[in-house]
Amino acid sequence: MAGDRVRLGLLGCGVVGSATARILVENAHEIESRSGVPVELARVAIRDTSKKRDAFVSPGLVTDDPWDVVKDPSIDLVVEVIGGIEPARDLVLAAIGSGKHVVTANKELLANEASTVMKAASKAGVKVLFEASVAGGTPIVRPMTESLAGDRVRRIMGILNGTTNFVLTRMSESGESFADALAEAAERGYTELDPSADIEGHDAAAKLAILASIAFDAAVVSGDVGCEGIANVTARDMAAAHDLGYEIKLLAVAERHGDEVAARVHPAMMPRTHPLASVRNELNAIFVEAEHAGELMFLGRGAGGPATASAIVGDIVEIVRDRGAPAAYPGAAALERRARIQPAGDVASRYYVVLSVADRPGVLASVAGAFARHGVSIASVRQEGFGDEATLVLITHSASEAQHAATFSELETLEPVRRLRSRMRVLGTAEV
Amino acid sequence: MAGDRVRLGLLGCGVVGSATARILVENAHEIESRSGVPVELARVAIRDTSKKRDAFVSPGLVTDDPWDVVKDPSIDLVVEVIGGIEPARDLVLAAIGSGKHVVTANKELLANEASTVMKAASKAGVKVLFEASVAGGTPIVRPMTESLAGDRVRRIMGILNGTTNFVLTRMSESGESFADALAEAAERGYTELDPSADIEGHDAAAKLAILASIAFDAAVVSGDVGCEGIANVTARDMAAAHDLGYEIKLLAVAERHGDEVAARVHPAMMPRTHPLASVRNELNAIFVEAEHAGELMFLGRGAGGPATASAIVGDIVEIVRDRGAPAAYPGAAALERRARIQPAGDVASRYYVVLSVADRPGVLASVAGAFARHGVSIASVRQEGFGDEATLVLITHSASEAQHAATFSELETLEPVRRLRSRMRVLGTAEV
Repeated sequence: MAGDRVRLGLLGCGVVGSATARILVENAHEIESRSGVPVELARVAIRDTSKKRDAFVSPGLVTDDPWDVVKDPSIDLVVEVIGGIEPARDLVLAAIGSGKHVVTANKELLANEASTVMKAASKAGVKVLFEASVAGGTPIVRPMTESLAGDRVRRIMGILNGTTNFVLTRMSESGESFADALAEAAERGYTELDPSADIEGHDAAAKLAILASIAFDAAVVSGDVGCEGIANVTARDMAAAHDLGYEIKLLAVAERHGDEVAARVHPAMMPRTHPLASVRNELNAIFVEAEHAGELMFLGRGAGGPATASAIVGDIVEIVRDRGAPAAYPGAAALERRARIQPAGDVASRYYVVLSVADRPGVLASVAGAFARHGVSIASVRQEGFGDEATLVLITHSASEAQHAATFSELETLEPVRRLRSRMRVLGTAEV
Repeated sequence: MAGDRVRLGLLGCGVVGSATARILVENAHEIESRSGVPVELARVAIRDTSKKRDAFVSPGLVTDDPWDVVKDPSIDLVVEVIGGIEPARDLVLAAIGSGKHVVTANKELLANEASTVMKAASKAGVKVLFEASVAGGTPIVRPMTESLAGDRVRRIMGILNGTTNFVLTRMSESGESFADALAEAAERGYTELDPSADIEGHDAAAKLAILASIAFDAAVVSGDVGCEGIANVTARDMAAAHDLGYEIKLLAVAERHGDEVAARVHPAMMPRTHPLASVRNELNAIFVEAEHAGELMFLGRGAGGPATASAIVGDIVEIVRDRGAPAAYPGAAALERRARIQPAGDVASRYYVVLSVADRPGVLASVAGAFARHGVSIASVRQEGFGDEATLVLITHSASEAQHAATFSELETLEPVRRLRSRMRVLGTAEV
């Protein structure tokens, strides 16, 4: 790449790949002036070469074999937007092995194989950048690795999935049920063919694993992240949240506790005054608490061709501009070791709990006893309704998941409790 | 800087300087692992060496002559946190001239002399980074220069002054007057000895000039930014904004119009659903609209020693890590030319207007005629009160400042108008 231009190979030319090709062509002048040399799209691997392509990819560049691109010695930099672990992993490792830099948007690969990829890159002396793998067009990987390079991150709370945030926004603003809001998201094209990875939190978990690895200098993988989705959030929960001045969000949370990392994805209530509570529709946002910088938030589009492609081209420009610098990804060495994950039962939370109870004296004493027996303190309690509608709404102080789980088990068998109607974690209650 | 450690000289050791020294000592291990070599605080220039310093600056490093630091051939990198244009400018230029990299938090210097500084840096082959000069600990300079390097920014809207945002938040949430809210900010230590640069918008204007220069690839200086402060915002305006579902914020706005840049700071009403509307208290935030990435927002602490120092250390790590790379600041060449500034009268806005009027038939026709004569369309109008309290509340469609100004002049002389009670720009009405 010491030459007078940089030759780029593109693996995959779907929505993100073709948007990347488009920016490379349309903004060629800015890209050259910002990176110092022209950047030329030299080869494009496409699954089905018979499909019509847009005008930004000239037919002469196209191949249906991604290995043509990876093995081409004239290619300096490979952009991987195939997604999924295989064959992307083998292709990326081969590109690295033959001295090519890599820009990838592949969250599955990085959330599972970051240490393999980074080890190979550091051995080969090439760069692997991946801004687009988390929150699409929202700059978060670079700020975390570079802007906060002199700081220590304590906690990350992210809205990392646009589909579920759209669904929860509709439920909050229109009082719709989960099913109706999901149907509306589908109509607008915000859902995947199989929406379960979004709804159940696995998509957000993969992105959180990547961010947590950067923040805490040790590899966190998808499987380390506990997941609870939004399918059980009801219109009644949403109304109750509003009564308390809260919103409900699907939050991806990673925290440092001593030398352990806790990471999980779950719906949570948070005060409306928290910056994350006002992140609406399909937007993504990441709230970061750092020791010196304090609270930061990054908001943007988490998906879509142009936004994701913008992040990819930003990474390309950085690699081209810094050719000649030591190539190692900052903190790559740290990713070679696995993070110590805090056992799920030890993670501390506050809970909002709704119980259907018998309407008679002594019920509160009995319920409060169950909490007390497991060491969970009650921050507030409110009785609502009469007779068959009698309900207790409680919010707990911080206690471990294990303590809460034991309390919930006991409540379900407690005589005056008819039903544990709802429970949800409460987060972000500190003022910012 | 090819050696086995980097020697750092610090110019100024007030709140930000001593917080920087503290991070360099406390996080020395992370900083070394992220930048590849140890970073040593080797020399510190302090105005009054007799003052007591904290433990992070050992007395042997201290001098009261900043030229000692700049002329020391063993210093690789100078951190400038003196502020103000002189002597900072001469010191920074001398450091650059003798081949030292520079990290600065100096908004006045960059908002007025960026092209001089960058030209010198590119001639000397050194880097000048300045993340801390805008919005303190909020990463915005690096995302704009690097993450969006492949994109085109259309518009920036920022809350760039924490003091005025705190004042407006108090006015909004407690119904306080401007004077009472300002007194409260002073009590909490959020105001400068002379708060006029904050209140009148000049502090925000300097930061906007820096961001606009990066975004639009041409130097915008403080004097290019039109300024209107918040001293005339009343509790009544705030109540009116709430009635419309709006908040009032002091916004710093820069836009590209063809080959011209429009830049100004002024209070504005914006819908509560806009992400900037929910930025509370002394926080800063920058909302960026880019061609491909779409809408982005960056939120964080705009001031304070630790947050600003975190940004400074992030810049130090980047310089140390990338030693060996081409040193030029991306876009530095672009800063050598001045931006073409759109004449203030041509900038388009929407306005909220409150008129005290006579309570009789025909008043609306007369008022509407004045708007029409200057080509300003009315989007909505509402009549409130009776007799001496009769009031018209109007919101206009987008028209130029010159058209609005001519309309306001005519309204002030129009017979049935008793008083032009209030007028304020309305922004951010597009849904995000």
